[in-house]
Amino acid sequence: MPLSESWLAGARDIVGDRLLLDPDALAPFSHDEFATDAFRTAPLAVAKPVDEKEVAALVRLCLREGVPLTTRGGGTGLAGGCIPCPGGIVLSMELQNRVIDADAKNHTITVQAGMTLKRLYEEVDALSLYFPPHPGDEGAFIGGAVAANAGGARAVKYGTVKRFVLGLQVVMASGEVMELGGKFIKSSSGYHLLDLMIGSEGTLGVITRVTLGLLPRVGSVQTLISPFATVQQAIEAVPGMLERGIVPCAVEFVEHAPMRAAERLLNKTWPARTGDASLMIILDGRNEEDTLSQAETIGEVMEKAGALDVLLADQKVKQAEILELRSNLYEAVRPATVEVYDVCVPRSQIAGHVGLVHALAQRLGASMPSFGHAADGNVHSHFLKSILRDGLFGPELPNWRSQRDEATAALYADVAERGGVISGEHGIGLVKRAYLSKNLGPVPMAAMRAIKRALDPQGILNPGKIFET
Amino acid sequence: MPLSESWLAGARDIVGDRLLLDPDALAPFSHDEFATDAFRTAPLAVAKPVDEKEVAALVRLCLREGVPLTTRGGGTGLAGGCIPCPGGIVLSMELQNRVIDADAKNHTITVQAGMTLKRLYEEVDALSLYFPPHPGDEGAFIGGAVAANAGGARAVKYGTVKRFVLGLQVVMASGEVMELGGKFIKSSSGYHLLDLMIGSEGTLGVITRVTLGLLPRVGSVQTLISPFATVQQAIEAVPGMLERGIVPCAVEFVEHAPMRAAERLLNKTWPARTGDASLMIILDGRNEEDTLSQAETIGEVMEKAGALDVLLADQKVKQAEILELRSNLYEAVRPATVEVYDVCVPRSQIAGHVGLVHALAQRLGASMPSFGHAADGNVHSHFLKSILRDGLFGPELPNWRSQRDEATAALYADVAERGGVISGEHGIGLVKRAYLSKNLGPVPMAAMRAIKRALDPQGILNPGKIFET
Repeated sequence: MPLSESWLAGARDIVGDRLLLDPDALAPFSHDEFATDAFRTAPLAVAKPVDEKEVAALVRLCLREGVPLTTRGGGTGLAGGCIPCPGGIVLSMELQNRVIDADAKNHTITVQAGMTLKRLYEEVDALSLYFPPHPGDEGAFIGGAVAANAGGARAVKYGTVKRFVLGLQVVMASGEVMELGGKFIKSSSGYHLLDLMIGSEGTLGVITRVTLGLLPRVGSVQTLISPFATVQQAIEAVPGMLERGIVPCAVEFVEHAPMRAAERLLNKTWPARTGDASLMIILDGRNEEDTLSQAETIGEVMEKAGALDVLLADQKVKQAEILELRSNLYEAVRPATVEVYDVCVPRSQIAGHVGLVHALAQRLGASMPSFGHAADGNVHSHFLKSILRDGLFGPELPNWRSQRDEATAALYADVAERGGVISGEHGIGLVKRAYLSKNLGPVPMAAMRAIKRALDPQGILNPGKIFET
Repeated sequence: MPLSESWLAGARDIVGDRLLLDPDALAPFSHDEFATDAFRTAPLAVAKPVDEKEVAALVRLCLREGVPLTTRGGGTGLAGGCIPCPGGIVLSMELQNRVIDADAKNHTITVQAGMTLKRLYEEVDALSLYFPPHPGDEGAFIGGAVAANAGGARAVKYGTVKRFVLGLQVVMASGEVMELGGKFIKSSSGYHLLDLMIGSEGTLGVITRVTLGLLPRVGSVQTLISPFATVQQAIEAVPGMLERGIVPCAVEFVEHAPMRAAERLLNKTWPARTGDASLMIILDGRNEEDTLSQAETIGEVMEKAGALDVLLADQKVKQAEILELRSNLYEAVRPATVEVYDVCVPRSQIAGHVGLVHALAQRLGASMPSFGHAADGNVHSHFLKSILRDGLFGPELPNWRSQRDEATAALYADVAERGGVISGEHGIGLVKRAYLSKNLGPVPMAAMRAIKRALDPQGILNPGKIFET
């Protein structure tokens, strides 16, 4: 059903010519960064409000006209959370990118939800402060990172985005503007609506402003690379660090197979040449004395755990190159990727789960490269439609669709058995929706639906994401 | 209305003789540790279930019979959250105190909700791990600490209880048992029901099991005391530490007036004798080298900020004595306390807020001693019904009731102006219920009520706490 004349007139009243209706202009809003086109859906219109007042007016218009709306941030998601609903419109946050308040005294910054992470890091840096979460793609908007509770490598030490959100401004389904939290750090003043909004993927409200708590800048950072014969050995080296009382900023495991693809993509070289996998360990601390002493201890732990080598990337240039290679692993395998897994299991279960992924790949005769966050249990495996060898992709497998579906079912069953969840940081969106109920069970699903109905009785906010409505 | 025969028969079927009905036995369940008797209400019965199955059966019984139930932990709360509803019963968690699973490998422990914090610290210690939150009274139950999102002094560095809760088992108002979270650290898998339950004060479910994430033990702890001429000077010294990149485990400010009362209570001596107030700074770190280097920097910062002295309590005995004095401040002023404030304001607003408290006390001719968490904005002021001088209480003020009400209104108005909340860690319960709506505004209140109705449509779980139903 096309948009009614009254919706169109109402929308023009609110945003004027910041309203897209031309199919060519709408096309970029039909997808996110998920690997395939399976969920692509074009919106009927895209509106670009500049502030919460315009957002609220658009929500009221959509409520009156019964038009579902999907909020879009940077469009960098991997779960289809910002893909519009059939018959729905997109509310693009791209024009809402102002700093509202930068407060060095309270270590907070309040920004509009449409600010990119790249810009946010710059603004925080200008305050000489530190916002640890780094979900990867700096084109993401902070509002989207909050809506998905984005994580990233530094969650080991610092937690996910959720931990840093002190305040939110949210436009509710009624069109009312709700202010939650503020610049204070502790609250036992009523239900944690703030946390409920975080990770709700635009289904309970439209996040328009975000207040973040910031940390003092770290004085020194060191990056270590340790290659291991097998990925299991690499992962099993991790508990030893924590036992020595060191919580690194990040502990990433990377299989060398997808790393070869990243090396080709960037024309750069990963420092470790031997073994099947590496651990990349980032240490931060008050000063160089502190981080070097941590690095020494970590080196001992790695050698004891059977590392083939321990390499310290002491120069900034080298650190940046290593990070760039790690950050581009998804881009590197993406041409052949037809499913991205983002499971999170208890730390002790990571090696076992990666073993299951290897066994699955072998049984199906497919490539399923893995990398991820070795200290927090968040494993990113990928199902490729062709074989990856020496960083190059072979021809398409004839039965990749059925093999992928078999792999997904087996992988998620393994995660459930190990007491994990199917998404550690990407969100459920459309892509994982069919699997959530089996993962969490009926009681939490019923509670989520009851909350959705309570806060959005007409179901206009991004309906169909997380669960079917 | 007394309990029906069918409720009594049903309850006996579930808990047998673990059911109290005798008024003398019920009396201890009519209050918590709030300073006055104003909210005292006796339950009609107290049931003591041993596990979630019995809890679920009791909830179903209460649902069928329309009897409101209030869950009670250690009864150490300060907001009346565990005080029963008129015509209601109490579900006492005291028999649910088992360790379900202690997992040194994953750094987690799962316990029944009725375990005291004292026992929990012992169990965590036996794993050679660390659970940082320390809300004060170790007689509190972990389930209650979760239900109130308890805080404590160490929240500066480590956050409140919320940050450590990885999993919960919750009996819902329907009598269904909901398992939330687990032993994993990251999740973007549906709404954050876990966080919604934390701090909901027993109004959305009965917490029966708690899984906590634990940290490696710290290697070294140092305690510093710095007296200042005025409490404002003490508080204003805090930003300097954070600017130097040090996040202490705790930064407490104490006025010397209530400290004199604690000294008399315990017959012990606070090390600082000059000035109006002290900062107590606890530093923790990997080893002594680390904490002593932090202490050195902090000492410089304190001296620059005008500290009258910087005292390092390097012996464990002295550290324990200082902590004991600080922990007993509430006990010390309690005989005359008729209101306990627990506000949380942005860090930059603490000194100004404490100034307002002083001005109020002076204008009303009353004693309003303050202490609290100087780095996280959580200020505990007290309204005393008599004048506190040299650690001794004078005669009762004739008009303390109206003076207290005037003080409360003015104090909360100041907090709202400064962008703070009326409870940082104690919860709202009954005691602060009348003030919450004014503090948060109508939109969040409406959202809370909608969620309450969605998850507890018959309103049997601790109705009337946080907001009127």
